[in-house]
Amino acid sequence: MALSSNVDNDNLTCVLYGIRDLRLEQRPIPQPGENEVLLKIQCVGICGSDVHYLVHGNIGNFIVKEPMVIGHEASGIVIKTGKGVTNLKVGDRVAIEPGVSCRKCSFCKTGKYNLCPDMQFCATPPFDGNLTRYYVHAADFCYKLPDCMTLEEGALLEPLSVGVHACKKANITVGSTILILGAGPIGLATLATAKAMGASHIYITDLTEYRLNLAREMGASKTILIKRSFSDEEAISHVKNGMDHKLPDVTLDCSGFQQTMKMGIEITKSGGILVIVGMGASGNVQLPLFNALSREVDIKGVFRYANDYPNALEMVASKSVNLKPLITHHFKLENSLEAFKTAETGEGGAIKVMIHCD
Amino acid sequence: MALSSNVDNDNLTCVLYGIRDLRLEQRPIPQPGENEVLLKIQCVGICGSDVHYLVHGNIGNFIVKEPMVIGHEASGIVIKTGKGVTNLKVGDRVAIEPGVSCRKCSFCKTGKYNLCPDMQFCATPPFDGNLTRYYVHAADFCYKLPDCMTLEEGALLEPLSVGVHACKKANITVGSTILILGAGPIGLATLATAKAMGASHIYITDLTEYRLNLAREMGASKTILIKRSFSDEEAISHVKNGMDHKLPDVTLDCSGFQQTMKMGIEITKSGGILVIVGMGASGNVQLPLFNALSREVDIKGVFRYANDYPNALEMVASKSVNLKPLITHHFKLENSLEAFKTAETGEGGAIKVMIHCD
Amino acid sequence: MALSSNVDNDNLTCVLYGIRDLRLEQRPIPQPGENEVLLKIQCVGICGSDVHYLVHGNIGNFIVKEPMVIGHEASGIVIKTGKGVTNLKVGDRVAIEPGVSCRKCSFCKTGKYNLCPDMQFCATPPFDGNLTRYYVHAADFCYKLPDCMTLEEGALLEPLSVGVHACKKANITVGSTILILGAGPIGLATLATAKAMGASHIYITDLTEYRLNLAREMGASKTILIKRSFSDEEAISHVKNGMDHKLPDVTLDCSGFQQTMKMGIEITKSGGILVIVGMGASGNVQLPLFNALSREVDIKGVFRYANDYPNALEMVASKSVNLKPLITHHFKLENSLEAFKTAETGEGGAIKVMIHCD
Amino acid sequence: MALSSNVDNDNLTCVLYGIRDLRLEQRPIPQPGENEVLLKIQCVGICGSDVHYLVHGNIGNFIVKEPMVIGHEASGIVIKTGKGVTNLKVGDRVAIEPGVSCRKCSFCKTGKYNLCPDMQFCATPPFDGNLTRYYVHAADFCYKLPDCMTLEEGALLEPLSVGVHACKKANITVGSTILILGAGPIGLATLATAKAMGASHIYITDLTEYRLNLAREMGASKTILIKRSFSDEEAISHVKNGMDHKLPDVTLDCSGFQQTMKMGIEITKSGGILVIVGMGASGNVQLPLFNALSREVDIKGVFRYANDYPNALEMVASKSVNLKPLITHHFKLENSLEAFKTAETGEGGAIKVMIHCD
Repeated sequence: MALSSNVDNDNLTCVLYGIRDLRLEQRPIPQPGENEVLLKIQCVGICGSDVHYLVHGNIGNFIVKEPMVIGHEASGIVIKTGKGVTNLKVGDRVAIEPGVSCRKCSFCKTGKYNLCPDMQFCATPPFDGNLTRYYVHAADFCYKLPDCMTLEEGALLEPLSVGVHACKKANITVGSTILILGAGPIGLATLATAKAMGASHIYITDLTEYRLNLAREMGASKTILIKRSFSDEEAISHVKNGMDHKLPDVTLDCSGFQQTMKMGIEITKSGGILVIVGMGASGNVQLPLFNALSREVDIKGVFRYANDYPNALEMVASKSVNLKPLITHHFKLENSLEAFKTAETGEGGAIKVMIHCD
Repeated sequence: MALSSNVDNDNLTCVLYGIRDLRLEQRPIPQPGENEVLLKIQCVGICGSDVHYLVHGNIGNFIVKEPMVIGHEASGIVIKTGKGVTNLKVGDRVAIEPGVSCRKCSFCKTGKYNLCPDMQFCATPPFDGNLTRYYVHAADFCYKLPDCMTLEEGALLEPLSVGVHACKKANITVGSTILILGAGPIGLATLATAKAMGASHIYITDLTEYRLNLAREMGASKTILIKRSFSDEEAISHVKNGMDHKLPDVTLDCSGFQQTMKMGIEITKSGGILVIVGMGASGNVQLPLFNALSREVDIKGVFRYANDYPNALEMVASKSVNLKPLITHHFKLENSLEAFKTAETGEGGAIKVMIHCD
Repeated sequence: MALSSNVDNDNLTCVLYGIRDLRLEQRPIPQPGENEVLLKIQCVGICGSDVHYLVHGNIGNFIVKEPMVIGHEASGIVIKTGKGVTNLKVGDRVAIEPGVSCRKCSFCKTGKYNLCPDMQFCATPPFDGNLTRYYVHAADFCYKLPDCMTLEEGALLEPLSVGVHACKKANITVGSTILILGAGPIGLATLATAKAMGASHIYITDLTEYRLNLAREMGASKTILIKRSFSDEEAISHVKNGMDHKLPDVTLDCSGFQQTMKMGIEITKSGGILVIVGMGASGNVQLPLFNALSREVDIKGVFRYANDYPNALEMVASKSVNLKPLITHHFKLENSLEAFKTAETGEGGAIKVMIHCD
Repeated sequence: MALSSNVDNDNLTCVLYGIRDLRLEQRPIPQPGENEVLLKIQCVGICGSDVHYLVHGNIGNFIVKEPMVIGHEASGIVIKTGKGVTNLKVGDRVAIEPGVSCRKCSFCKTGKYNLCPDMQFCATPPFDGNLTRYYVHAADFCYKLPDCMTLEEGALLEPLSVGVHACKKANITVGSTILILGAGPIGLATLATAKAMGASHIYITDLTEYRLNLAREMGASKTILIKRSFSDEEAISHVKNGMDHKLPDVTLDCSGFQQTMKMGIEITKSGGILVIVGMGASGNVQLPLFNALSREVDIKGVFRYANDYPNALEMVASKSVNLKPLITHHFKLENSLEAFKTAETGEGGAIKVMIHCD
């Protein structure tokens, strides 16, 4: 198919056909239904889950069986509003919360819509994502950006919302001592949130120095480099020393490896909270769970976010956090395949790769 | 040593000298210090942990190195008050909360005194318990029993407080669906509390039928017998069927086996809570943890109790719970060794074995 | 208009035209839209707010300007399901939660849909109620009754949900001491809920003895009769004596008078909670607020309920509460005006007046 | 009495003898008992309550009947440790939490020790304060200052702890919109805390411009000057306009006037929280309470603080807040009477007046 240069008809779209089969193709421009808006997509960040679908074709039980538009960390501009839309008008710049829930089940009604079994979430099979030019979304899941915010920042609200959700579950308050395991985009977004919530001592670990450099730039009290060669015990001992044997009130594991979870279990202060933000492969993990449980360290998981986008937006708008350092690479929509390659390999110190669609 | 029949000097005491070395001996009668009371002990229940110390000589890192008085589920009568005691007077019948915390650390000050690192807890090495005739305790950790409560019920407030503590952490509310794994004394006390809190559907499992009979008597909606021959998958499937595929809002694992924890992880409703009440051996357990975490099922441990005795007392006094069915056997202090044998073997359908010291 | 006896066309409906102008008239039978069900209404309880609209024509800023169908405490039978309905089928007996919220605002998304500014609530102007034969409602706000529950109990879930909502806000737990001010239907529903949540001591006050008799029947620990002649100070002193000077952890004011609020402020235990369930006239009230605030007694209001119907239903189904004693009078739909007269005057010891529509 | 210049014997002390009768006199140097430390007092801030005792001789039911040492916002240096003290050593610089609770009542055990009825609080009759040279205090209520903190900041932890306590009760989180009524020391400490907790929009009102200037310096998003001539309605309308009709999630009333409470009631967003931090005269206030309650705006009071000093200390140590701008005036202990005059009149734009005792 020839890619048209005519804006009116050009809806170049990045579609995942299967393992390592990502294609750019034209798709019809959709029309907004009731309570929906048509958006001209602007920025789309690449998430680790996008790469995982590209490389593995699935995440757990979510399997790519039909061609699926990729992308879910997006911002756009409203170009048409459907019937009943009152919160947005044409021209508004918006961040897009990528999941639309059923609004009728008990999860939706109790404020936990992230657990809705009928959630339609961008680029989670079988639902299309928004790495495309034109995209329709529920208006109430689009958040108008104030003038002081860029569209790139709008796209970054997605990973930031994960950090916000995790930190809320962690009951972080002023003066807290926090340990974050992993300094990838989610770890760094969590760091930024913990700092905005008033945590006083934020320690963060990673296997690579350049991520930790960024963590320091973003406000970590101290960074701790873990060597791949460390045994579990060596890693724990190394972190304890790095923290001057101050125990964290909260540990946020943004890696989801058995080793990091073990560290969180052994190191978190009695009565504290261990939040597992990064989720590893399904199946069994082998952990000294009673070490945490017998000291009343609660273990909590997070699944995406719910009601966190508005907080994330206000944080950025009020300069409580600065997410711009996260973005290390830029690509055009036309070069999406190259963008994914960069995100996958992490070459050039890639943290967050941003694709521009307009 | 001859056991005196002279009440004034008789302080017959049950002392654990080491593995399977439990002895009755005379000890001096202690005197109450400031803010303390001298008690004539009345009833002492035998707990699984007491038996564990007898059989293994330790629980985790708590090791019996010196002779230690056993017993911590006790009630008594005040026979002397120390200086400064205002909440009690001679003749008061009391339940004894067996741990006295330091009152000065951050755990004590924030209401989590059960996590106090300087806790002095009856029959946890190196601290003596109260299976004896005369015993001194901090007055503010003794709770006056109303006339409507028996001294046996006073002793049972200890396991009931574990149930109360667990159920508070579980956020049980009216209408909840609850699954309890294990129908021993703690499982049954938890059942009684969950019912008192308004849980509508309480399912409980066990390996033995007579415990489940008692569970039904105490208010379980339905009991589910697990066969020892079941595989993990068979057990889970059997429980799901037993619950008519209704998922529990809360699972309380009162066994602490890898198999029961696995069941709790797989079966608890998304967004629900899994409380691990029974704690198994330290060391690693192998579990599909992400199954729970990715569905935001929080996993919480409980360590004894804090501020739960008053609630437990009021529950019994107001007839919200009836604990009497728990007591299956009675012994005199002089026959403590026999009592422990009964508790260890469970012979005669033993649930709670009660020793009478007066 | 002649009232047809033909069931197919008979949609006799009770319509409030203005102050003391309640009429029975035929209305067209509505058809269910998407995600809606058509119900044959069975039982409708009369609420104090219904009577208030009849007598005053308004409640605060909610003013009856157009003829409005009255009634909002209802149960019915599904006779037709709209497109997309999956939770119900024809023949299901249901309780009807009378408010349908917008599902898109921040209140709806955070689980506080009772605060939704676009709420459409039965018999709150300008929205029609359901004291009629045929009525259409959102399917997800209809709750299927189990066989063990009657349709009368289904209608009573509405006031019970108010009690559940209030008691959840009050953080009632096992062993709590509770004071309820007012033994009308809401006070009694609150009493039943507090008891189901495990409160040990429940004191309740009222101005009339027959209501207190019912309170005792429904589980009050003790009832306290207030004389109309009492001054504020006499009333408070009388209640303190009645409670043997035990202070309530929680006071639930189900009257909403200045006098009862004052009592709640002065009598609630430091660190406790005062919930104002009954709301009086808008405008100023004169209260010793600092008495409560300086002792960290939190003051909370309740507005209807959110996510409480399912709990209320399970409580009734599992026999945790028995609401049947609340119903003192029965009328046919055809005799609605007489039913309202009974509810207004309270004649014959009326507590809850139930209208039968089928 | 001649004031000795001999340090060893000089214990110059500021004692309130009655209304407007504040005297400097020598007192014996006390000795630390068990678990106590002897401190050389360094800095003592003057609080509005100190001035109130000086001017009125009482605060509510707390009446100065005997001569009482004034002062409770203090820092000092440990010069002697009593038996059993392990958390401090001679030479440690500490902030002094001025209240020592009984440690044994249910308030103390549940973490609400600020409500302890047997609290011994500095300069609350009949307990002496610490505007003196040598002072003995419970070691566990003294918090060691890190090198990066000054002794002045140590003294300021007292008002900051009030702000921390208030903001914790207010459930402030990232992105919140906050309205603070009153920009005195407590209002400004509350502002600093709300900002540290991640509030995005913080509006603050006051009657005087110089306080609002300081508020802007300390991070207020916007300040709103209220004129004394405003009626209640004008004031509310003025604040609404000042906030661009954005409603606050939380209002913190740091004034405690009927007018400010009314504003908080009318302006706080439905489902939000109104915290009354400043407490006015006891007795009745006249307020449209149902306006808040019917919209489920919870109203909470704060009484001092509990477990907040450690958070406050970490906030300052980690530079989350900068309290130094609060201190506008300095005096020597010898000039305490002048210091109180400045604090009372507010002359010279006084916010916080600091007395230096060493």
